[in-house]
Amino acid sequence: METVKRVGVGIVGYGTVGRGAAEALAASLPAIRARNGIDLQVAAVCRRSPIPQADVPRQARVFTDWRHAVADNAVDIIVESIGGTGVAREVVQSALTCGKPVVTANKNLLAEFGDELFALAREKGVPIGIEAAVGGAVPVVRAITESMSGDRLLSVRGILNGTANYILTQMETVGLSFEQALQAAQQAGYAEADPTRDVDGVDARDKLAILTRLAFGGSIAPGQISTRGIRQIAGVDFKYAERLGSTIRLIASAARNGTGFEVGVAPCLVGRHSPLAAVEGANNAVVVRGERAGTHMLYGPGAGGAATGTAVAGDVIEIARHLAEGTLRHKPNTGFPPNGELKLSSHPQPVSWYLRLTVKDRPGIVASVAQAIARHGINIDSVLQEPGMDKERLSFVITLEPVSEPVVEDAVREIDEMEFMLAPVVMLRMQL
Amino acid sequence: METVKRVGVGIVGYGTVGRGAAEALAASLPAIRARNGIDLQVAAVCRRSPIPQADVPRQARVFTDWRHAVADNAVDIIVESIGGTGVAREVVQSALTCGKPVVTANKNLLAEFGDELFALAREKGVPIGIEAAVGGAVPVVRAITESMSGDRLLSVRGILNGTANYILTQMETVGLSFEQALQAAQQAGYAEADPTRDVDGVDARDKLAILTRLAFGGSIAPGQISTRGIRQIAGVDFKYAERLGSTIRLIASAARNGTGFEVGVAPCLVGRHSPLAAVEGANNAVVVRGERAGTHMLYGPGAGGAATGTAVAGDVIEIARHLAEGTLRHKPNTGFPPNGELKLSSHPQPVSWYLRLTVKDRPGIVASVAQAIARHGINIDSVLQEPGMDKERLSFVITLEPVSEPVVEDAVREIDEMEFMLAPVVMLRMQL
Repeated sequence: METVKRVGVGIVGYGTVGRGAAEALAASLPAIRARNGIDLQVAAVCRRSPIPQADVPRQARVFTDWRHAVADNAVDIIVESIGGTGVAREVVQSALTCGKPVVTANKNLLAEFGDELFALAREKGVPIGIEAAVGGAVPVVRAITESMSGDRLLSVRGILNGTANYILTQMETVGLSFEQALQAAQQAGYAEADPTRDVDGVDARDKLAILTRLAFGGSIAPGQISTRGIRQIAGVDFKYAERLGSTIRLIASAARNGTGFEVGVAPCLVGRHSPLAAVEGANNAVVVRGERAGTHMLYGPGAGGAATGTAVAGDVIEIARHLAEGTLRHKPNTGFPPNGELKLSSHPQPVSWYLRLTVKDRPGIVASVAQAIARHGINIDSVLQEPGMDKERLSFVITLEPVSEPVVEDAVREIDEMEFMLAPVVMLRMQL
Repeated sequence: METVKRVGVGIVGYGTVGRGAAEALAASLPAIRARNGIDLQVAAVCRRSPIPQADVPRQARVFTDWRHAVADNAVDIIVESIGGTGVAREVVQSALTCGKPVVTANKNLLAEFGDELFALAREKGVPIGIEAAVGGAVPVVRAITESMSGDRLLSVRGILNGTANYILTQMETVGLSFEQALQAAQQAGYAEADPTRDVDGVDARDKLAILTRLAFGGSIAPGQISTRGIRQIAGVDFKYAERLGSTIRLIASAARNGTGFEVGVAPCLVGRHSPLAAVEGANNAVVVRGERAGTHMLYGPGAGGAATGTAVAGDVIEIARHLAEGTLRHKPNTGFPPNGELKLSSHPQPVSWYLRLTVKDRPGIVASVAQAIARHGINIDSVLQEPGMDKERLSFVITLEPVSEPVVEDAVREIDEMEFMLAPVVMLRMQL
């Protein structure tokens, strides 16, 4: 590399992710200059509210109107770190229309409008870097779109929400209740004041929509993905899980079966020897199964400004290298291909199930429940009850031999109507 | 992509890896043609002994002299799958000299002659693809050289030999002795007739030399890496490990400390909750810790023709894309940088240790051993003895508080001299 080329970055939205990206870029600049001969600079930052001068990168101009940041001649690459699907969508559209590459960590935007945005990106011949949108700093987008791109993928499955995983592992290891663990997550800075997107599985669902799109090609709307959260998980579920050689994780899964794809987010019992059981705290992990490459796992920090910022910076650096060398059109395409809709499976695979029932105890309950289960043609595998429980509000567990989800749901609906039931059945998939 | 461009691959050495690569390429061809407009073909295969016609890819010429395969006009990329450091080195040199890119899974060759070969590759302006050399199909080279390239890495640590891991997990889960587990590995097709490279840590050491080179820049000769194998591990060690909340894995590790780098291969006690404890059978895993990106793990099949073949094919496809688009010089450099030697640490970090002693029992043994340990200024953490052991050949375990390796080695040398010792002390690092 003979001459140093200048590439300017504009960061639009300057919260945790935007600042994390600026810091990660600042840390990498000397190495990039030495190795790639590129003088990469944060040329502009943009936020509606004022930014303390100490947080503004050297040489960066400060804007409050994103249109000025996108239009700025010193800005070659736009980092969209606003979040949401409103202004963020306009920013990305506007940048692409100006022919400026975009890097974003916005899973919400990509899950909802990814097809539209990638169509625009193709039309304009500029890339969108999305490594940071799924799995924080875990390079799962690169693994699927590059490393395993020659293989026929069978499934993509993982722990995609660090906050939910933090809550579950706090419940498991410290013995906190769901509410206490949620508070701990909020105090640790993981959970937002409104934790809905994390604990109800919405964030994991959006990330799964993106992974599914990348791994299997067909398009899928987030609304098509069956999504259950972790609010109904109680401390006692971890005791029962332990007796079953398992723990509980919120699993996002997209898998090929004979008739199409099964795509869903749900809390699951995960066997102690599964690598996913070893994923603790706010970490993320993705297990990718390929027909030839076998089963792979990637694991790492899933949340936080530093992790996400590093992933954003990685995409920015790759695009900057192509910009500096005039090879942008040769950058491998990590985007959504212009395919039709993903074919969802009409026949979900049978799996084993864990049902926890909360009842006012009296003789005959197990018999009534067992009869209802038998009427649906389902075999019971085991019935478990922790010792020393309050008879007035007793939890016990029934595990079922493999059966498909709609069949269990029918049986559960019938059980939920029984007069001794104090709460709806808690129904978890078992992945042993 | 308007026109289809032809890229020919020559596979030199047609054993497990070569055939695996041919099969993986054959499986990917339609997708590559459709997506990248490249007509990728195996144009030549080469082996000294005859190849059954059924194993020869369609349209491939068959050579017995590698010089003809390298020189063949239809061959644009050379896959070196001979193994070893003799002819393989000549093949790579010759291909690079002709300006033909090389893809290789040969960790032995890269560990010994990587610096020389990458210097030649730089001089000739052609890449060497080495993803398959470390971790089989696990994309660890890409993770270190691309995804985490902007970060300052702190450590790279992992399970790099599938055969040794298969043996250890057979001992752990089935209760086999080392010899029985080795036989099982040979029957399963993992271990060679001469298992030295696998069980004595040599293969893991060569892979670690490559990872260290990529992660930290400086060059390191495999002979500089402290290497212990797993021959001395016995079934009873897994019982003691379990009492200590751990299991045993052969860990290859390169880590930055205050005074330089510690680089070594050794069997270690690994805490049950460590993701590395969940790595079973012939799988590989690598844990990379970056200053900003945090701790990442990659996990997947580490051995076998399909896994390695897929990784080789991935490199071939990436290079073919650059060849077809005339952008070979823009391919990200995954090679060894032309740096000086890696600075090895003069002060290894203190860690906890597990010592297993095999003795003819009599009163006073623990006292003698404890005195020796105290003389070296080391604190004992615990003394463990499994019940019901034969007094004539009794194994017991002493765990030590953190202390550096040379200090423990001095104490162990003294203990080994004691008259009641029936075998040398088995000394394992504890990573809890």
